[in-house]
Amino acid sequence: MNAPVDPHFAARCRASFARQKAMTLIGARLTAVEPGATEISLPYRDDLTQQKGFVHGGVIGMIADTACGYAAFSLMPADCSLVTVEYKINILAPARGPLVARGEVVKAGRSLTIARAEVYAEDGKHIASMQQTLMMLPDTPDTPE
Amino acid sequence: MNAPVDPHFAARCRASFARQKAMTLIGARLTAVEPGATEISLPYRDDLTQQKGFVHGGVIGMIADTACGYAAFSLMPADCSLVTVEYKINILAPARGPLVARGEVVKAGRSLTIARAEVYAEDGKHIASMQQTLMMLPDTPDTPE
Amino acid sequence: MNAPVDPHFAARCRASFARQKAMTLIGARLTAVEPGATEISLPYRDDLTQQKGFVHGGVIGMIADTACGYAAFSLMPADCSLVTVEYKINILAPARGPLVARGEVVKAGRSLTIARAEVYAEDGKHIASMQQTLMMLPDTPDTPE
Amino acid sequence: MNAPVDPHFAARCRASFARQKAMTLIGARLTAVEPGATEISLPYRDDLTQQKGFVHGGVIGMIADTACGYAAFSLMPADCSLVTVEYKINILAPARGPLVARGEVVKAGRSLTIARAEVYAEDGKHIASMQQTLMMLPDTPDTPE
Repeated sequence: MNAPVDPHFAARCRASFARQKAMTLIGARLTAVEPGATEISLPYRDDLTQQKGFVHGGVIGMIADTACGYAAFSLMPADCSLVTVEYKINILAPARGPLVARGEVVKAGRSLTIARAEVYAEDGKHIASMQQTLMMLPDTPDTPE
Repeated sequence: MNAPVDPHFAARCRASFARQKAMTLIGARLTAVEPGATEISLPYRDDLTQQKGFVHGGVIGMIADTACGYAAFSLMPADCSLVTVEYKINILAPARGPLVARGEVVKAGRSLTIARAEVYAEDGKHIASMQQTLMMLPDTPDTPE
Repeated sequence: MNAPVDPHFAARCRASFARQKAMTLIGARLTAVEPGATEISLPYRDDLTQQKGFVHGGVIGMIADTACGYAAFSLMPADCSLVTVEYKINILAPARGPLVARGEVVKAGRSLTIARAEVYAEDGKHIASMQQTLMMLPDTPDTPE
Repeated sequence: MNAPVDPHFAARCRASFARQKAMTLIGARLTAVEPGATEISLPYRDDLTQQKGFVHGGVIGMIADTACGYAAFSLMPADCSLVTVEYKINILAPARGPLVARGEVVKAGRSLTIARAEVYAEDGKHIASMQQTLMMLPDTPDTPE
């Protein structure tokens, strides 16, 4: 459905993700990139938890946010950058194990892109649902200034 | 406006926050707790950034989420636990420095509480706005099972 | 996937919808009810528009909100009532014709249910996406007090 | 805090609001316009209700949406148009009487504006809170094509 305008979209997404030090900090990996869709995997670690030992809701938000972002970024031209305008996430169940976040573009517009992400536990349990808005910055490098 | 039902609310919030290992991981501190209001401070660190060197939007979400959560928790009875139902955050500006998230209860209901958080940079720049829904679990310990 | 606990769920949803005078006002009809899923149809009318002649974003929100609500209500027991906690909607494209809103339950919990709705134009164009949280009130009539 | 770039912003907002036939349909009036802030008043009517006789959540969304929109529009140049990107609303309490929605700009950006609206009952009860994102379309008439 979504055709990438940049044939090297996957390498570009992986290189950008590798620059996200916050993803390295929490141990998240970009385990799949397709045109308009991504998968981010997060092993369980004790230092990612909240006060009751479950994965922190904000950490779940981080991987869902990033899954949406690279789903959008995969469809963008090579010379642009992307900013998150806003996101909304429902936490559906507590999680105490590895997670996977699957991001998908709902609508890729000229300037704004809408994406969604679902977060699942290893046993398939549905952990969270996100809906996000992103804005493309044309002719803007995706690297530190 | 909001009267805490638990006179030891501040100590209870600080003890709960101290159990959030994800907050320790990113270096966030609970720097103020009032009835229905909190402040979380986040020093800038290189390992909290996204691909362009700005603080990761998901990290901004983490401190805003937690600021809302403890604003709500401060008004709760001593023997309850709190879960995040959902949150929505607008990222208003990129940030490349220390941040402070101020959470505040909008409405404390019997079961559901609505809270907001604003995130600011050191120079007062408005970085993000969150609106969140939380649910109280009565007679539930706020510690690992 | 979702089994209704009330075998008369469809009649119950239709009777409740018929009491929504705001739906009558805008000319919306409940055109399908399945367990956990609904469809609401809205003919185009000049008096539903905003300043540029497109269907008002708030009217699009009304049918998406109601589609989510009855998707959730279809899975509830007969003696309960349902309140909307919150919803978030992205308007993806302007609309100047009839609309259909399809609601679907994402997760039906004991107390909270999460639902989504997609709004489409007659030609299949994707007009809006909603994500919603609802709360069940047990032993509460779904009629005026 | 917010200086309007168009000195005739109030007349422009009122003229645009007057073209919103959906506002006429529900009986809403734009009762105040300041730079970056608006007030919309909605008398109670039986035909605005949901199944239990309360004002329909989607109708509450309509006036909050419109209050945000004109708060943003008041700060825009004269020759632009505005589209709603998305909004999120929490319904805090049921309402069975007249309502007022107060919209306010949180951040007016070059392209995107973030606004909030609070909805109150006549007795001052807080009924709903909205957070919204809008996008300016430069050099675009705010009238039907």
